[in-house]
Amino acid sequence: MRDLAADTDLRHLSLNTATVRAQGDLLTIFDAAARHGISVVSPWRDQVAAVGLDRAVRAVKDSGFLLSGYCRGGLFPTDDAHRQAERDDNRRAVDEALALGAPCLVIVVGGLPQYARPESAPSNDIADARAQVTDGLAAMLDYAETVGMPLALEPLHPMTAAERSCVNTLRQALDICDALDPDRNRGLGITLDVYHVWWDFEVMAQIERMGRDRLLAFHVCDWLAPTADLVTDRGMMGDGVIEIPKLRAAVEALGFDGACEVEILSDAWWARPLDEVLTVMIERYHTAC
Amino acid sequence: MRDLAADTDLRHLSLNTATVRAQGDLLTIFDAAARHGISVVSPWRDQVAAVGLDRAVRAVKDSGFLLSGYCRGGLFPTDDAHRQAERDDNRRAVDEALALGAPCLVIVVGGLPQYARPESAPSNDIADARAQVTDGLAAMLDYAETVGMPLALEPLHPMTAAERSCVNTLRQALDICDALDPDRNRGLGITLDVYHVWWDFEVMAQIERMGRDRLLAFHVCDWLAPTADLVTDRGMMGDGVIEIPKLRAAVEALGFDGACEVEILSDAWWARPLDEVLTVMIERYHTAC
Repeated sequence: MRDLAADTDLRHLSLNTATVRAQGDLLTIFDAAARHGISVVSPWRDQVAAVGLDRAVRAVKDSGFLLSGYCRGGLFPTDDAHRQAERDDNRRAVDEALALGAPCLVIVVGGLPQYARPESAPSNDIADARAQVTDGLAAMLDYAETVGMPLALEPLHPMTAAERSCVNTLRQALDICDALDPDRNRGLGITLDVYHVWWDFEVMAQIERMGRDRLLAFHVCDWLAPTADLVTDRGMMGDGVIEIPKLRAAVEALGFDGACEVEILSDAWWARPLDEVLTVMIERYHTAC
Repeated sequence: MRDLAADTDLRHLSLNTATVRAQGDLLTIFDAAARHGISVVSPWRDQVAAVGLDRAVRAVKDSGFLLSGYCRGGLFPTDDAHRQAERDDNRRAVDEALALGAPCLVIVVGGLPQYARPESAPSNDIADARAQVTDGLAAMLDYAETVGMPLALEPLHPMTAAERSCVNTLRQALDICDALDPDRNRGLGITLDVYHVWWDFEVMAQIERMGRDRLLAFHVCDWLAPTADLVTDRGMMGDGVIEIPKLRAAVEALGFDGACEVEILSDAWWARPLDEVLTVMIERYHTAC
């Protein structure tokens, strides 16, 4: 297991830019990251769109940043009238990830159609939403494979099943990987975020099943007890109950040597100064991951 | 599948008394239930304690109520210093369930020790908490079996893993049943609450695995989207996204003919008049279950 306390160069730390999305635009965030010695980042699509893709690409290059991922494609469930728009949108997401030099595109699959794509006709048929996810991901993979962009399917916590993701456990995500990429050679893998999987009694067994080749991204933050909001009350590493080192040990036992990507969606941290958040984040990267 | 719209006698409806816990004590709730033609109830321990066990037993008898369960034993994770107190407390819960004539005692296993039993030394070791759950439930079952009180293990939603229950899926709960009661003859079974399991991609397969003999109680309410609070924002049936009739059809396909027990923990419904809540609940029992 890597000794992150000794990683003074922050080689294995990545800043997911949603962590400080409220404090400035992407270029402001990149400047702050560079100021703190961070050299790996993972931007979100809306943040890239806000400054323009070309400018974002140039900023990544000028800063000498590496990316650990690009957030995010997916949101598949919709209705027939809006299906082509979903397919086009996801193809654009792949192209943007390529332009930015991301090693993978994170996939958040969406929940029921009225939440995944609000223009859709509503339906509470979650089995149908899941069938749409498999179909949509299959179509997306056909394209992503041809251009060489790995897709990193992220199981999201079960409390997000209606509104954000109807893929909710690592077992379920791996079942989809087995179905669409049985030989593990098409570039379909997993984003594993401790926040979404720490509660799962079989997460260690499923991490073993996943294997090194299917782990494309590793996200960290913490589960606060109590948690005040289902979306925007994630904790800084060390402030909650997740045994992050145990989960990191499990993925590193597979041979994983990628980044610990910090993704904290939090009203509390969004309200604090950018430099303060990065200072605490780096400290906790050393002591609580 | 039973036609609940035609059940004008409310023979298959049970009122879990937590649904209106803010509106009055247990005797007040019993009076209101009788007034609305409800004859099956499921009381909570603290509500029974507040009026006294003897008085509660007498009220159940005088009203001619049947019980569909008694809530709740469990909360196993603690520390060595408080282990005997936990064992004694759970033995009392079994005795109370017997005195009240409950067909089963609902088991909520608890999360990390500092939340399950706040006097305990804190620990974030969820695997250890789960080992304590199995040990504690085994000890409790030894006693409950001798007095003939079935224990109805309830998997709770993963968002409760830290603070309320580290048994979070039907698969996990059934694994525990298989371990402690492999021959299905000791009286260990399941409380299945749609709120806790609706999101699970394998819930239908696990319901099949469960079988009729292991299903001891069936709870209904709804998942609101958005959900404002992790504990007290459950919805009235029909107000959320859960396909309740599909889940009821699945348990009735096993042969289940027990009550639909309505358990709604909700600040919004607790703020409304008792009779109004029962009126809406009965209407939705007919139309949305």
